[in-house]
Amino acid sequence: MTSEEFDQLRIKLPQWVEESRRHGTEGKVASYIPELSKAPIEALGIHILDGQGRSISAGDCSLSFTMQSISKVFTLILALLDNGEEAVFSKVGMEPTGDNFNSMLKLELVQPGIPFNPLINAGAIAISSLIAGEHSLDKSARVLHFFRMLAGNDTLDYDYDVYRSESETANLNRSMAYLLKDNGVLEGEVEEVLDVYFRHCSINVTCADLASMALVLSSDGVNPRTGKQLIPRRYVQIAKTFMTTCGMYNASGEFAIQVGLPAKSGVSGGILTMVPGKYGIGLVGPSLNRKGNSIAGVDLLQTMSQHFDWSLF
Amino acid sequence: MTSEEFDQLRIKLPQWVEESRRHGTEGKVASYIPELSKAPIEALGIHILDGQGRSISAGDCSLSFTMQSISKVFTLILALLDNGEEAVFSKVGMEPTGDNFNSMLKLELVQPGIPFNPLINAGAIAISSLIAGEHSLDKSARVLHFFRMLAGNDTLDYDYDVYRSESETANLNRSMAYLLKDNGVLEGEVEEVLDVYFRHCSINVTCADLASMALVLSSDGVNPRTGKQLIPRRYVQIAKTFMTTCGMYNASGEFAIQVGLPAKSGVSGGILTMVPGKYGIGLVGPSLNRKGNSIAGVDLLQTMSQHFDWSLF
Amino acid sequence: MTSEEFDQLRIKLPQWVEESRRHGTEGKVASYIPELSKAPIEALGIHILDGQGRSISAGDCSLSFTMQSISKVFTLILALLDNGEEAVFSKVGMEPTGDNFNSMLKLELVQPGIPFNPLINAGAIAISSLIAGEHSLDKSARVLHFFRMLAGNDTLDYDYDVYRSESETANLNRSMAYLLKDNGVLEGEVEEVLDVYFRHCSINVTCADLASMALVLSSDGVNPRTGKQLIPRRYVQIAKTFMTTCGMYNASGEFAIQVGLPAKSGVSGGILTMVPGKYGIGLVGPSLNRKGNSIAGVDLLQTMSQHFDWSLF
Amino acid sequence: MTSEEFDQLRIKLPQWVEESRRHGTEGKVASYIPELSKAPIEALGIHILDGQGRSISAGDCSLSFTMQSISKVFTLILALLDNGEEAVFSKVGMEPTGDNFNSMLKLELVQPGIPFNPLINAGAIAISSLIAGEHSLDKSARVLHFFRMLAGNDTLDYDYDVYRSESETANLNRSMAYLLKDNGVLEGEVEEVLDVYFRHCSINVTCADLASMALVLSSDGVNPRTGKQLIPRRYVQIAKTFMTTCGMYNASGEFAIQVGLPAKSGVSGGILTMVPGKYGIGLVGPSLNRKGNSIAGVDLLQTMSQHFDWSLF
Repeated sequence: MTSEEFDQLRIKLPQWVEESRRHGTEGKVASYIPELSKAPIEALGIHILDGQGRSISAGDCSLSFTMQSISKVFTLILALLDNGEEAVFSKVGMEPTGDNFNSMLKLELVQPGIPFNPLINAGAIAISSLIAGEHSLDKSARVLHFFRMLAGNDTLDYDYDVYRSESETANLNRSMAYLLKDNGVLEGEVEEVLDVYFRHCSINVTCADLASMALVLSSDGVNPRTGKQLIPRRYVQIAKTFMTTCGMYNASGEFAIQVGLPAKSGVSGGILTMVPGKYGIGLVGPSLNRKGNSIAGVDLLQTMSQHFDWSLF
Repeated sequence: MTSEEFDQLRIKLPQWVEESRRHGTEGKVASYIPELSKAPIEALGIHILDGQGRSISAGDCSLSFTMQSISKVFTLILALLDNGEEAVFSKVGMEPTGDNFNSMLKLELVQPGIPFNPLINAGAIAISSLIAGEHSLDKSARVLHFFRMLAGNDTLDYDYDVYRSESETANLNRSMAYLLKDNGVLEGEVEEVLDVYFRHCSINVTCADLASMALVLSSDGVNPRTGKQLIPRRYVQIAKTFMTTCGMYNASGEFAIQVGLPAKSGVSGGILTMVPGKYGIGLVGPSLNRKGNSIAGVDLLQTMSQHFDWSLF
Repeated sequence: MTSEEFDQLRIKLPQWVEESRRHGTEGKVASYIPELSKAPIEALGIHILDGQGRSISAGDCSLSFTMQSISKVFTLILALLDNGEEAVFSKVGMEPTGDNFNSMLKLELVQPGIPFNPLINAGAIAISSLIAGEHSLDKSARVLHFFRMLAGNDTLDYDYDVYRSESETANLNRSMAYLLKDNGVLEGEVEEVLDVYFRHCSINVTCADLASMALVLSSDGVNPRTGKQLIPRRYVQIAKTFMTTCGMYNASGEFAIQVGLPAKSGVSGGILTMVPGKYGIGLVGPSLNRKGNSIAGVDLLQTMSQHFDWSLF
Repeated sequence: MTSEEFDQLRIKLPQWVEESRRHGTEGKVASYIPELSKAPIEALGIHILDGQGRSISAGDCSLSFTMQSISKVFTLILALLDNGEEAVFSKVGMEPTGDNFNSMLKLELVQPGIPFNPLINAGAIAISSLIAGEHSLDKSARVLHFFRMLAGNDTLDYDYDVYRSESETANLNRSMAYLLKDNGVLEGEVEEVLDVYFRHCSINVTCADLASMALVLSSDGVNPRTGKQLIPRRYVQIAKTFMTTCGMYNASGEFAIQVGLPAKSGVSGGILTMVPGKYGIGLVGPSLNRKGNSIAGVDLLQTMSQHFDWSLF
């Protein structure tokens, strides 16, 4: 049956991509990191991978882009591996916020001032400070190594232009990090923590890389090609839960209603999602809606999920 | 296998109930509706129903209690049946808030000032105004009839003491309703709308009633005993999604991580939850934690979900 | 010298009025109370009264208009006369808010949820509940009597069209009042309290009436014509202080810098102000700026205050 | 008459100081800058200076302490001298906030995200960036020179321990500064701006120094001993207005009601105030109330102001 579905997917996907691509003009390419504004607004590409190693691509699949917030799912997992649940959840909460991903309101208004969850900026910065390693470069090397393993791609690397662009202009993230420092959330030097954060946000990927990483999550932490358990199942469960409740910024609730799959978006226009037990999916469409998610990408996922009845709910 | 699980559940549940019951002393019975404060703080009861009509009860199952916020799931469904998705979601959003269930901050701060979701108080009041009917009594009669049908219990009725108690003291809900009126969200007279709301919150149930209602949701809208489709599958999906992202007030994120089931709690200490495709579950434990959920009830669900690996994620 | 100043004022005022009047087109007549939207947008009138009974008028002085928020200064004074400082300031604070006059944010965010000051809507509603009297009509009769005495005008009365218009549409004020009730700030029935509030807001006046009332404040509570102490000096001091720190909504700080006189504005476009020890001033210009103050009126007061060096500071 | 008042002050002050000093035990010495926590909690000293060069001291007048927020009044004046009103008020507003002095809420919630006034931390940091000079050291040298001139004391200097202590721990101010940078408010490097800010906050003074500086303001910018205009009168007016509406943190409204004088407090326990046209006053009492003002100091000023009827209102 899955095979039938996969065949149907292969046939229908190109047309769906073209239909969704048109929505790109309704949005905007991210500009708050100057380097990101160079992405092609009309692009849309998707890569789907199943556990038997079969894959489908459609659209602009050769486009490479930085992970941005998508990386937060995997630094969370690495922080859990490094510190355990209890230590991690003493520094970040588990709740969606309803606020913009870069809001600081709740850090001031809600005691004890820890980030509400690990997928908003404040939370991901707190998570960056929990990655094991002496300095930002050690920590970053461990992150990159972990991401390469999950993607099965030893050539994953930073986009240094994006890294520098973000590092130079990220005053709002700096503000957030110093507030976290004041609230007793961050260990270590703020700029060291931010360096880890900026680096993992600027790791360059393709849709195929995201699909590979997603497939590991959709297979409960096992690499389906090797059968090897790369991530303990509980941490995959935590990651998938957060992706469902908080993965699409403050449009996560709507995405859960309309698509119903664990997913994480980035302001580069990338989305990593999965059909648990079946597929890992990576897509990119740089034109963003008001809440920071790929317009064409969300539209395409909605079409697919409703057609094949993929919602978890 | 499910049968084996059910047998195991039957054996283990009484002891688990006693273990979780002890946590009751860490919380408080709700007092903001004076009548609710009479509930027994140490009580804990649960009823589990499967699609073959088998059931298990444990603990204080004879306790009856008012649905309070649990009713919001079903008035949402009725409003969807009466108005369709588009009309309903022009008046309430789909996002978790991160705020208390009775907060008004976002109604002032986030344009256009519609409630973020149908399960917070403001959202449920907006939903009450969408129930078809001439007056509050017609609307309320339709709600009660719908609830009776879902529970398969024609004797469901209001607890008039709780209804009056809430109606007389609910100044915060009145405040919210007038703000919604000012924001153009509510149709009709504010007091009429509130009357519908207070009535459905004060419908009296037992754990068995909640389990029956939950079973319909866990069976995608079908009454498993009759095979009859009581609710269209899409509306069940919407309800289950909201229960997952917003069902446990501003502890929904944590509940998703620790339990991972669609659920809705009420300040009477009730929780309606389900294992999709398997069971409908109703429980009550009046002692509440800081966020308004049954302490012992959440603890019990966590034990069960982790033991049987029930999480959706 | 004052006499010289007064002569100069008489000569210059007509031209200044014409110059300031032009700014009317930059603003808008209030529309949140439907009846107010009928006011002439280009109107500007002013009346100045000194302690020797001399007066100057210029512009549209025959225009009558409702006091709206200007009344709050005098209900505060009456509440002080009825209850004393301690009782009044247990129900309202003394601080400017920086928020809109109809904001409810701080009532939820800042414990114990009492209004920050008596000149924002929430504070004035709390003050209305403190006026002595059995019912809203007794209380309102006492308010009207007090205002007539201060204005030296026994014909002051309500504009019933505005009263009804506000009473029917004031859902935001109702919301605020119920929140205050919930916070334990309001005594008595919410609708009774609001009725007192709506009535005093809809008392009809001319610029000459406001000037007479202002003159009493500028003379430390004494009616300069009769030498009679109408208000204890301490309560006048309290009123003038609040007018300086909170009288012009959330533009009070700017008004203090640019004009530097105690003043209170209303959304009808009226402003009551004074040069302490010298003049009582009433003006009206219905076109409002973004913060709810008469555009032409503020401009005219700035011209006058800077020309004659009237700032208290 | 003033002379009589001065004689009476001289007689009564020692006893009043002892009475107010007792309130010190109700508060706490500031600890957020570690170095400040060393101040003696029971201390209270005051110095009053009149235009004829006469002075009165009482209590712990030899205590030296850092200016902290008191310095903000004078950096504002220097920024006005350097840039003019229009440029300064394009970067900071004129409104009290009702929030804590270190709150960032309004920077996120109220567009365009400029500080509400120059006397809250965010505003004073913005002002620091406006001081003319190539680098933080030039700017700081100009500030110190200006303060020395106003105090008539060429030995004024930094308390380097406090400067370092604040500089090392001021993560909340750093957070604010980066948010201001992101909002387009700050010119130049954030750490450079903060260095100017930390330095002027840590200038060491005695009550006599504050009294001298206050006397210049109370004399409309003229040094009464030399007759020289040190500050243009308009800038003094602006400063005195802000001191009245925003000088005592979010207790400014209450201070205006109870004392009624332009004043500025610092978390070191210092208060600079004045009786316009008469006296410059400096006091210190390190024990602070919940809002950050000297408990004993405010009490003493209230006693004095009410006894001699000093309120501006």
